[in-house]
Parts: sequence; structure tokens; C-alpha cells
Amino acid sequence: MQTLLTELLGIEHPILLAPMGNVSGGALAAAVSHAGGLGLIGGGYGDADWLAREFDVAGSAQVGVGFITWSLARQPKLLDLALRREPAAVMFSFGACSPFVEPVRAAGAKIICQVQTLAQAREVAELGVDVIVAQGTEAGGHGGGRSTFTLVPAVADAVAPIPVVAAGGIADGRGLAAARMLGAAGALIGTRFFASEEALGHPNAKRFIVASEGDTTLRTRVFDIVRDYPWPKHITGRVPINAFAARWHGREAALYADLERQRVEYQQAVENGDTDTAVAFAGEAVDLIGTVEPAQTIVERIVSQAQSLLGG
Amino acid sequence: MQTLLTELLGIEHPILLAPMGNVSGGALAAAVSHAGGLGLIGGGYGDADWLAREFDVAGSAQVGVGFITWSLARQPKLLDLALRREPAAVMFSFGACSPFVEPVRAAGAKIICQVQTLAQAREVAELGVDVIVAQGTEAGGHGGGRSTFTLVPAVADAVAPIPVVAAGGIADGRGLAAARMLGAAGALIGTRFFASEEALGHPNAKRFIVASEGDTTLRTRVFDIVRDYPWPKHITGRVPINAFAARWHGREAALYADLERQRVEYQQAVENGDTDTAVAFAGEAVDLIGTVEPAQTIVERIVSQAQSLLGG
Repeated sequence: MQTLLTELLGIEHPILLAPMGNVSGGALAAAVSHAGGLGLIGGGYGDADWLAREFDVAGSAQVGVGFITWSLARQPKLLDLALRREPAAVMFSFGACSPFVEPVRAAGAKIICQVQTLAQAREVAELGVDVIVAQGTEAGGHGGGRSTFTLVPAVADAVAPIPVVAAGGIADGRGLAAARMLGAAGALIGTRFFASEEALGHPNAKRFIVASEGDTTLRTRVFDIVRDYPWPKHITGRVPINAFAARWHGREAALYADLERQRVEYQQAVENGDTDTAVAFAGEAVDLIGTVEPAQTIVERIVSQAQSLLGG
Repeated sequence: MQTLLTELLGIEHPILLAPMGNVSGGALAAAVSHAGGLGLIGGGYGDADWLAREFDVAGSAQVGVGFITWSLARQPKLLDLALRREPAAVMFSFGACSPFVEPVRAAGAKIICQVQTLAQAREVAELGVDVIVAQGTEAGGHGGGRSTFTLVPAVADAVAPIPVVAAGGIADGRGLAAARMLGAAGALIGTRFFASEEALGHPNAKRFIVASEGDTTLRTRVFDIVRDYPWPKHITGRVPINAFAARWHGREAALYADLERQRVEYQQAVENGDTDTAVAFAGEAVDLIGTVEPAQTIVERIVSQAQSLLGG
């Protein structure tokens, strides 16, 4: 399936691994790249040792890396660390990426910016980025309020000829084929790869995702509050509702009031793989995910199904 | 473009007009049907004289009708009125449609049920309905929280072989083609037809929709509060934000406190076509709508673009 995206990145299939923090490590990124897509290591909140280790794990695989832009702005040296690994691409999301465009370009990597609104897409198009990811609210983890189905074609119209990648809600070949019809040159996929053998998440988190239903996910700030991550208020995290989310969502003031105790219990739950309390970010596409599989199997099935649909 | 939907309904194109209250009158429904889709008159909150008149306006065109189920339950005789007009189909949304399945079937009309969640889809599939519309939160007007992109394939998997129609966010041929890829047998389209010459809305409302952007719509209850319509709390109405929505959304208690005065002013605004105050329900797909056109032009362009995309 050749598209503007596969040509630009020199990959076989128009599939990018979402750089999920603590989930998209070197093994998963390498597996997606080996399968013909492009794996993006999740730079997360910026742990230099973690990032160096995961690049090591990826080995000789051609991978990229993604950063939470507002977090990277606090410790911009992480970008230098990443660029020394000669990534194929660097992705930015959730904040102004303008300070980072020149260093990435100078290093010879492609620049991918993820946006959540049409207005943001117009802004980053002005910066001369290589790829724009239009992320719908269906997406697991952090994101905004607009939906994939309308955001992708609107962004494609606004930023042409920059290739647009659809993100949010894509977990099978139907989603990739639909993204192509909407004007996207490819798909950025997160939740489906969280439920892969190579993902770094706790096995309980992967099982929790497989068992979850799209009807019972929501966007919430409660996990950012208890983890002490200062996300902008308009960016929330989509999760399948667990006991912690059910208890605190909509009661954020009460959570703040009991924060010291909740943090201790939360940290314990993370260590125990207790998914009643610890977060497993995942999107509305959980309905379409039935098993934990190798990343290569996932890529192959998505491509095969999309090709069949698009060829018919 | 032949699908399970076109076969079942005996229509040429897999396009249904959303039965928008006060907007989808007989002229618009007839125009969509004449263009090869199926027009559904918007039964709205149940004005028998209005409904009779709009069926008269539709004349000999083969059209259907849609009801707000919780409102119809308060005055079920409206269904008898509609069935006497021998509609091609009757659509139900927003409430339990089980009491209405038998009368519609006995009258020889097709039964279409619209759902907003996977759980609702499973329920109505058990009733033996003919078509299930999976409505995403992108949709203009009343709806729920799940997004089209993930709801459609999940519902299609759950209710097969019942044909599924995608609703919410579809305004051009890209949307129809994407809906087909996601497993839908067709598309139910509202906002795009609101901006048609035949729609009943005020010309100012149509201009307001053309000028609106998808980034600045939201789901709100404020227009139901000021209009005194007792919608279930989980069903909200998507609107491009106008001055009234900006003033009262999130301040519902204050609106209730000033309701008597606000109602008078609101009614005046409706009469004046003042879109700063009066509602124009519309979905996130407003970005894709550039002009007010005849419904036939809209249908032809959507079909032509979708066929071109699906054929390539």
C-alpha cells in the first residue's frame, strides 16, 4: 500500500506506532518497523536513562521517537540524546513544536506533529513539518475533543500537500481503509499495539484492555492528578473506566483533598499491576481488540484487511 | 452503489436524510428521495398538523419519517398518523423503540432504530429491526458520546447481518466511502442537508452553519432547557457555539434561575432568525460544508466522490 507517507518515510506499510509513554519501548518500536511500519519510541515525561535503554533495545531497527512537547520543553536536552541515535522521525504532540523543528531538520530526521484541532493543523503546516497527525478524541491516552471522522478530512483539505496521518480509533484494517478514504496517507495506532506481546505495559493492563468495551471509556484528568503531571486542562486522557476513575472522575476537588494518601496507594497499585486503580490508557477501539498478539501479526492483519477492502 | 441498504429499501444510493426536527420537512425529504436516497421527515416533538402538512408537501415521493422515541411515547397516535401515509420506513431514536416495532411492521414499513452505544445496538438487534443506525458524537443535534469511527465497526460486528448505517460526521463522498470501509451499508446525513435549499431552517441558520468551524462545536443542554424539552440527561445537542451557548453552557443553574426572561428573549430570537441566540444544530462536519445547495446536487456530489474513491 504505497502512499505519500510510505514514500516520505521509506517504509512498506502506512502504519505508525503511537509513541505511548511506558508502553512503546524499543522492542515494540523495532517490531513495528520490522513488520514494515515505523515504530516510535514513547519519550514520555522524559527519563533520559529509560530513553537511552530503549534505543539500545531497538538495536539496528530504523525507529523514531515521540515527545510530549510541553514536557520536552522543560528538559530540551532529551532531544539531543534522541537525535544522536539518528531516528527516522521525531514526533511532537501537546504543545508548541516550533522550537524543535530546526534541530530535528538539521539532524536529518523527519518532523511529525500531532494536532487535535483544525486550527493547530494550520499552525504547524506553517512551520514546514513533514507529516501532520490528526488525532481524534476516540484515541486512548491524552488527546482533545474533536473526532477522527471529521478532523481528518478537514485537516487534509487545510494542509495539502503535507501528508496527514489519522490517529484515534484505528485498530483494524477497516480503520486503516477508512482513514485512507477520509484523505489520510496512513494511520497512527496506539491501543491496538498496547495489546501486543512486545509492549512494555503490565500483563494485567493488556488483559484489561482486551476485556474493556468502548461504551465505557472516558476522558479524564484524575490519573494525571494522582501522578502529578501538569497537563494543560484541555488535554485529557482516555481510559476504560476502572474503579479509580469511577470513584474520582467529576470529584477532582475531593481527590486533591486526599492526594497524599491516594498517591501512596496509587503507586502501590502500579507496582502490583492492580488495574482497578492503576491506569491503562486505551481508546474507544477496544471493542475491536480480542487478543494480545505479536506486533508483526497485528501489522500484517491490518494491512491485509485494508488492502482487501480497498481493492474491492 | 449497491449495498444491503439499497436492496432492502429499494433505493439507488445508500444515503438517508436524517429526520431533523423543524428542518427535514416534506420538500427536503422528497428531494433526497428523488435524488435516489431516502428522505425521512423529522417528526420532532410531535405536532400532528405539522406532520400532516409535510407529508402533503412530500406528495407522491416515497419518503419515511423519524421520531424522537421518548416524545412519541407521550403521544403514540402520531405514529398512526404517519403510518396512514404509507411511509417507506419509520426511524426511532432516543428511547425504547420496542413498543413501536409491531405497528410499523404490520403497516409494511421498514423499521430503522438509531443507537448511540454498542449496548443499545445489541438490544435493538434482538427486536428484529430492519436497519440499525450507529450515530457518533460528531453528529449535529441530539446524540451521545461515542464516536462514529469506532462505533460503526463495533456495531457492525455485533448485529450482523442486520445492515448498519453510519451517522455523525458524514458530509461528503469521503465520509460515505469511509463509512463503507468501516462496515456500514450506508450513511445517514443531517448537517449537510440542513445547508440545502429545501431545508426548512431559517436562511440565517443555514448561513451560520456554512460559516461555522468544527473546532468550535460542543454538546450542550442549554437549548433544551430554554425550549423546555425534557431530554434524558445523557443525550445532549451538538451546536456550533453561538453567543447563547457561550453564555450559558456550564452555567445551567444560572439559566434555570433566569428562565422566564430567557424564554421570552429566546422565542423572539427564533422569530427574528437571530442565530446569536436561536439554536442551529449542526455537527463537526461543518468544516466540509461551503455553500447552501439543492439537495439533489448534494446527493450527486457525495455519490460521485464516494464512487470515485471506492473504485480507486
